[in-house]
Amino acid sequence: MKIGVLQLNSTIGDYAANRDKLVAAYERVCASGAEFVIAPELFLCGYPPRDLLLRPDFIEANLAAVVEVAARVGVVPLCVGFVDRNETRPGRPLTNSAAVLQNGTIIWRQIKSLLPTYDVFDEDRYFEPAKSVAPFEFQGRKLGITICEDIWNDADFWPERLYRRDPIKELIAQGADLILNISASPWCVGKEQTRLAMLQRVARDERVPLVQVNLVGANDELIFDGHSVALNRAGEPLALGKGFAEDVFVVEVDEPVPTVTAQWPVPEEQLFRALSLGIRDYVTKCKFKSVVLGLSGGIDSAITAVLAVDALGADNVLGVSMPARYSSSGSLTDAEALAKNLGIRYEVLPIEPGFKAIEGQLAGVFSGTKPNEAEENIQSRLRGVTLMALSNKFGSLVLTTGNKSEMAVGYCTLYGDMCGALAVIADVFKTDIYKLARWINREQVIIPTDSITKPPSAELRPDQKDQDSLPEYETLDAILQLYVVENLSKAEIIQRGFAAAVVNDVINKVTFSEYKRRQAAPGLKVSPRAFGSGRRIPVAQRFRAS
Amino acid sequence: MKIGVLQLNSTIGDYAANRDKLVAAYERVCASGAEFVIAPELFLCGYPPRDLLLRPDFIEANLAAVVEVAARVGVVPLCVGFVDRNETRPGRPLTNSAAVLQNGTIIWRQIKSLLPTYDVFDEDRYFEPAKSVAPFEFQGRKLGITICEDIWNDADFWPERLYRRDPIKELIAQGADLILNISASPWCVGKEQTRLAMLQRVARDERVPLVQVNLVGANDELIFDGHSVALNRAGEPLALGKGFAEDVFVVEVDEPVPTVTAQWPVPEEQLFRALSLGIRDYVTKCKFKSVVLGLSGGIDSAITAVLAVDALGADNVLGVSMPARYSSSGSLTDAEALAKNLGIRYEVLPIEPGFKAIEGQLAGVFSGTKPNEAEENIQSRLRGVTLMALSNKFGSLVLTTGNKSEMAVGYCTLYGDMCGALAVIADVFKTDIYKLARWINREQVIIPTDSITKPPSAELRPDQKDQDSLPEYETLDAILQLYVVENLSKAEIIQRGFAAAVVNDVINKVTFSEYKRRQAAPGLKVSPRAFGSGRRIPVAQRFRAS
Repeated sequence: MKIGVLQLNSTIGDYAANRDKLVAAYERVCASGAEFVIAPELFLCGYPPRDLLLRPDFIEANLAAVVEVAARVGVVPLCVGFVDRNETRPGRPLTNSAAVLQNGTIIWRQIKSLLPTYDVFDEDRYFEPAKSVAPFEFQGRKLGITICEDIWNDADFWPERLYRRDPIKELIAQGADLILNISASPWCVGKEQTRLAMLQRVARDERVPLVQVNLVGANDELIFDGHSVALNRAGEPLALGKGFAEDVFVVEVDEPVPTVTAQWPVPEEQLFRALSLGIRDYVTKCKFKSVVLGLSGGIDSAITAVLAVDALGADNVLGVSMPARYSSSGSLTDAEALAKNLGIRYEVLPIEPGFKAIEGQLAGVFSGTKPNEAEENIQSRLRGVTLMALSNKFGSLVLTTGNKSEMAVGYCTLYGDMCGALAVIADVFKTDIYKLARWINREQVIIPTDSITKPPSAELRPDQKDQDSLPEYETLDAILQLYVVENLSKAEIIQRGFAAAVVNDVINKVTFSEYKRRQAAPGLKVSPRAFGSGRRIPVAQRFRAS
Repeated sequence: MKIGVLQLNSTIGDYAANRDKLVAAYERVCASGAEFVIAPELFLCGYPPRDLLLRPDFIEANLAAVVEVAARVGVVPLCVGFVDRNETRPGRPLTNSAAVLQNGTIIWRQIKSLLPTYDVFDEDRYFEPAKSVAPFEFQGRKLGITICEDIWNDADFWPERLYRRDPIKELIAQGADLILNISASPWCVGKEQTRLAMLQRVARDERVPLVQVNLVGANDELIFDGHSVALNRAGEPLALGKGFAEDVFVVEVDEPVPTVTAQWPVPEEQLFRALSLGIRDYVTKCKFKSVVLGLSGGIDSAITAVLAVDALGADNVLGVSMPARYSSSGSLTDAEALAKNLGIRYEVLPIEPGFKAIEGQLAGVFSGTKPNEAEENIQSRLRGVTLMALSNKFGSLVLTTGNKSEMAVGYCTLYGDMCGALAVIADVFKTDIYKLARWINREQVIIPTDSITKPPSAELRPDQKDQDSLPEYETLDAILQLYVVENLSKAEIIQRGFAAAVVNDVINKVTFSEYKRRQAAPGLKVSPRAFGSGRRIPVAQRFRAS
């Protein structure tokens, strides 16, 4: 059987555009011989719609879109994700569902069984799960139609199952001889490989072919990577969708031998493509075209600028250097060299006059006090004021350039360098930033070598270096990985060989800077545990890890 | 039977303090003749612990605290909320549980059955629900021990039940003759009355006495009001805990006739007390003592200052006037008069020199452009820079003064007047702000009359008034109530008699300003639908209500 796979990018709430894109792609795969066509989870409303699901008009518009798409569907069925109403009470009023459309109408519905409610997922907040699943009979076959998480509960693949039910086993028990999975599965580093391995295990164990269509595109923090998969009954790949780009193809699922081989780009390239897609979709889905960012001469802003140029084109990126009294001359020359290498517009707007004015304004109340982070933060905040003024004047979004290591320990200024619409590298540790920079420079110097090799500095006081306040980034990132990502206790981290005083200091910094992250710009999520909507920590709390 | 009710304020993660406070109060009610003592839901770890629950060390500390409390409990049982481990798999690894402690050990456990997963609640994210409930037999009685939401599913009280199960009915069917409910039920305007009416209905219908202990105190956005309740089997009140304050009392539940009458302060007073508690607990639980805020001479900053003084004392509040070229002379005199009335420290720190400096900095890039919100926002952001500098220098938290109407339509400057640790009145519509101001001034003029009567203005351009950009607040707030709180469609709102153009404009402003709210300070929640953690809307989305 030939399955048409529509790996497309939809925009939340843009029903007309999502509908038209879906229909056009459906017609294309039909013309290429598809016998059954699949499109991603909640494609018509976009993913994740979050609390828009609580709006009856949003649900109505989604149901209307299904009817409009159905009107364009002929004899070849199209299976697509939508939000259905659940009329049974008690129970949540909605379901996350797949509709099979044919000859103008909905001929089959399958409700999602397993509703992820962890990390960034809140599906229990909105949806009632399926009570049962059943195969859809078509052309003498039994198609097991599943939605995303439904396939992520394999007892053999995972050390611990999250859910009681296993919809795949239930479908196989009812004779399903082809598993289809429509997904909106967000990416993090390495996810495309875990996902493929998991799907291969399912196909091989159940001895059925399997096709998964995954959403592509970014929405706020989440990046959907595509990488759709078609496997034969031996679990061998028959087709693999592109990564981080739309892809529409037809695959014959009954091929006994593999027809493609999985070949993955190096992790740095995958990360680069993910972040670039994240920028492009955030900016364009918000109906902006261009961005502005501060260029400090350092590695973080350099990488963010390179990504922005890849995402939006050099003409749509403005780099701004905002030197003050503690800026090194290297900062200016490195920023300028980067701008030249990238071919972007570049402005130098010194903040020194503003800094002097604020010092004068506060001279009376500050008299007799010692310089502290108050003066440092004024400089950072004046840079924020400058970038936001450019944004407000010219209609460009500000990109923030902070990395995950800084965000974790609060080595950043709220309303200062944290200003911006999107935090591009907020989920990338500093040690990975260096790897990414070396990958970017693999063929030619795009990021000035000096930006990579000089000791990192915020340059907010004389001769300041990051490592005056923080441990070496190798150490810091290792501790953060254990504390923030793996939730280890202080004692367990010390047992791994880190100095108690250093561990203590890092944990205290993480705890104390929660209030900054609460007000941070949305950050692109590329790890299993990002700061942002998937990590919810009270600010007013006194737990101290022991 | 005499029930001891411990309506106490706990701090998330402060196990030692929560434990000691609990034990001291337990000993007090035992001395007063209590035969069975109850304390709030998740009291030992504090509520809501959110993703701290994902940390094994947090769970360990909570279990250790239960053991430590048990060691101090004698023959009079103490029932208190804690986080228990759930060892069965598949299933979430934790439960939200009640422990009955007696003679040094845990003698009974009851798991919460109904897990709220809506609005600010995410309990499905963490907890496995009870499979069943059973009464706890004690002194010849059967105590039905329930946890918060367990009692909120009465089929007769609510037009629509949320859950399939009704733990109260299950307990009654097993002979429960006294219902106990340990709660962390957050407040919104009128909630104390809804809650009492609901509990009265349960007691009366089941013909059992009922005692609910509710948490008191604020944690980030949430304000727990206390107002614990004891009812006889006719549903008549036997005891009512204080509102917005700790209260510890003993009540004989078998009194056949009511012994107290519910008398509620006016809504403005309740709101005032809630917001004051919200400030005090946020500031003190974050280990700060004092606050600083901008005084514009307007009503919003005036009310915030009055609340701050009530919460923290006049000595701990600094008011700052930051005039610029468009500030009216009335702004300064009104701000000064307020500061005098409140007896707080007051500084005048004009931002004009900073504004001139930034204008100079940007003169080149801005040349040939017309003044727009860029110049307006620079002024607001320089005020943010000033307040944050004072905060960083003197260790005071900044309070933001924006109201819900402004926050809804984005009539506020991100990183400007939105700067701050806590948004005190962010969930109060402007029309309610006026009511609150009149209540504050009921006996004497505290807020200068002119601040209440003059047309509201941001004073960021010549002769600016709020109503140049916004409909009258009566109209705006009515539309916002229908759109944001009640989720009505555009057509439905117009049907209620509002002009289509106005409705359209308001809805567009709400939609377009989502990015500002994403980065807003935590705001005290006092309505059923606040901006903040209980309202989750994508930023990059294009749904337009029809």
